[in-house]
Amino acid sequence: MSETNAPIITFLTDFGLSDGYVAEMKAAVLRDCPSARLVDVTHLIAPQDVLAGSIALERAVRSFPAGTVHVAVVDPGVGSDRKLIVASVNGQTIFAPDNGLITWPFRLHADVATHELLWRPAETPSLTFHGRDIIAPAAALQASGSFDPAWLGRMDRPVLLDVDIARSLADARVLHIDHYGNVTTNVPAAMVSLTTRIKGVGAVGQTYADVPPGRALGLIGSSGLLEIAIRNGSAADRLGLQVGQNLHVY
Amino acid sequence: MSETNAPIITFLTDFGLSDGYVAEMKAAVLRDCPSARLVDVTHLIAPQDVLAGSIALERAVRSFPAGTVHVAVVDPGVGSDRKLIVASVNGQTIFAPDNGLITWPFRLHADVATHELLWRPAETPSLTFHGRDIIAPAAALQASGSFDPAWLGRMDRPVLLDVDIARSLADARVLHIDHYGNVTTNVPAAMVSLTTRIKGVGAVGQTYADVPPGRALGLIGSSGLLEIAIRNGSAADRLGLQVGQNLHVY
Amino acid sequence: MSETNAPIITFLTDFGLSDGYVAEMKAAVLRDCPSARLVDVTHLIAPQDVLAGSIALERAVRSFPAGTVHVAVVDPGVGSDRKLIVASVNGQTIFAPDNGLITWPFRLHADVATHELLWRPAETPSLTFHGRDIIAPAAALQASGSFDPAWLGRMDRPVLLDVDIARSLADARVLHIDHYGNVTTNVPAAMVSLTTRIKGVGAVGQTYADVPPGRALGLIGSSGLLEIAIRNGSAADRLGLQVGQNLHVY
Repeated sequence: MSETNAPIITFLTDFGLSDGYVAEMKAAVLRDCPSARLVDVTHLIAPQDVLAGSIALERAVRSFPAGTVHVAVVDPGVGSDRKLIVASVNGQTIFAPDNGLITWPFRLHADVATHELLWRPAETPSLTFHGRDIIAPAAALQASGSFDPAWLGRMDRPVLLDVDIARSLADARVLHIDHYGNVTTNVPAAMVSLTTRIKGVGAVGQTYADVPPGRALGLIGSSGLLEIAIRNGSAADRLGLQVGQNLHVY
Repeated sequence: MSETNAPIITFLTDFGLSDGYVAEMKAAVLRDCPSARLVDVTHLIAPQDVLAGSIALERAVRSFPAGTVHVAVVDPGVGSDRKLIVASVNGQTIFAPDNGLITWPFRLHADVATHELLWRPAETPSLTFHGRDIIAPAAALQASGSFDPAWLGRMDRPVLLDVDIARSLADARVLHIDHYGNVTTNVPAAMVSLTTRIKGVGAVGQTYADVPPGRALGLIGSSGLLEIAIRNGSAADRLGLQVGQNLHVY
Repeated sequence: MSETNAPIITFLTDFGLSDGYVAEMKAAVLRDCPSARLVDVTHLIAPQDVLAGSIALERAVRSFPAGTVHVAVVDPGVGSDRKLIVASVNGQTIFAPDNGLITWPFRLHADVATHELLWRPAETPSLTFHGRDIIAPAAALQASGSFDPAWLGRMDRPVLLDVDIARSLADARVLHIDHYGNVTTNVPAAMVSLTTRIKGVGAVGQTYADVPPGRALGLIGSSGLLEIAIRNGSAADRLGLQVGQNLHVY
């Protein structure tokens, strides 16, 4: 395989960075697909916060090129009878537990196909770490071109979380808060016009430079959703916003 | 060198992630072994906590394939006369300071061979950063196949920390607490039976799904040691457990 | 391109690690330069702390081999009319916003050439994420050998922060505090002699092993600047030092 055809495999988990769990998944991948380019999306999803993982996963799907394989493991149900999912979206493939992690890619993309992952390793997997023992090796098989379609089972509908993009401005709420305190809402760009206002924020500008430092603004972020930011500051802290909270957008 | 033969080099330190120290070690490796696959194990070992580093190192040795080279640097004695160690275990090679970091791989694996690292770079190394100036370049020489056995000196016994796996249940104590608050003990699987109980926890189950959310359970973890976990919660927080604390297992 | 000629691209930002923003920049790089070796310097620069970013960037420039391309993004002015900079130093290339990030490499190296980055992508870049949409793709073009010098504009003088190395010991102050609490000053090695003293610290030794645990010492660090450390402890905490604070060195 030529260098330029080396597949990309990304990793998104709630494992944190203080243990070697992420490295153990990468070791499993490199055993089966030694040419893979490994890229971390994030491992600081709050423990067992499937929704936050789902939103970060959708951003990754939006960013990486066709052929990329994503390993997404936020898996509080490991060891139960929850299924594993293989999803095709944007020419990329996601391997994850079927617990709602696929929700946000599923809501925001038109072309998502989902199957159950039936493949299991020859060696009995651990009961507590399917990310390392099943999901990562299956992703490596996909990335190396040796994944057999017979390992896919029919999945009529994946598990989806009870969140969606807003159907009207009355549905507006806080979806995500990032490292800078920037706030992503569930309001899609198509609902936002030049006269749209957010209570406590004001008009929807275009960029941080449109307002003085310390002033809040609304803008359309790179996920195509309305965001609230403060130039050189934390909008979440200053406006007292939390994930799930309703917003008055009009 | 073909892509699929690219050697794997891992990094385990207490350097944290806010400075570029890890990158400086990787730069040193890439100078001498540009084809290496670099994988971070963790850099969030508490500053100078050699035991925690040793436990994480052993998990890495258990996970990576033969031929992997591990760079492990938790090195409060840098600049003193402490030696440097090269250890062979599981077909892999560890480069580290000889200060006890090798303890846990040494205790849990049968086939460990240790030598003193005699190799020194042509340029005088800094007095405060042997990880970058000696250990990482030596690991790169090993990974690229150009490490000369003459650079190994006899080491009859490496420095070992005063910890071991339990010789009886009366020795049970807390060895490590991970990101989720899961608690690893020093009790090996061979001492655990269906009738084993942990005071304040109860029976030893198999997996998180065997108990309701919020309930504690004992289980055999992937290191082959007894662990204590709480489904969807932190066992360390809920049970008030700390590293080194005695446990009543019976 | 042979494996051993794979270019190195480093990343230094204030993006934090909880979102996937770093991965989005890497995705942009891998689209245009799939053979690149990607190395993180740090993403934990305090939000919008251009000086701290500049100091970390200089250490990276000092460590990596010729040919390395550095992507540095601490960019509070994104979306304003601030320019983008391309700097050549030590046979390496830095791509960054022209907001002072280049200050410390510029102060400490003799051979820095700076130009304005005129290249823009075919697709309109986002207004809030030039790191992903302009800086990273331009760095990938450089790394893959397809960067056209016509994309460089004349830049007589880059934006520089109002900090410099000390011109006399009376100028001594705290420049940076690292993960361990080690303190880097702005005092260059050439001003330090065997009789130099730091008030509250004492003499300037050579290494941690020269003092007992818990005792402070001065030493020349790997950036060639005077540092203050405490063996097995945090000098910043113990001595109550903060970035920018004056020091009495005599």
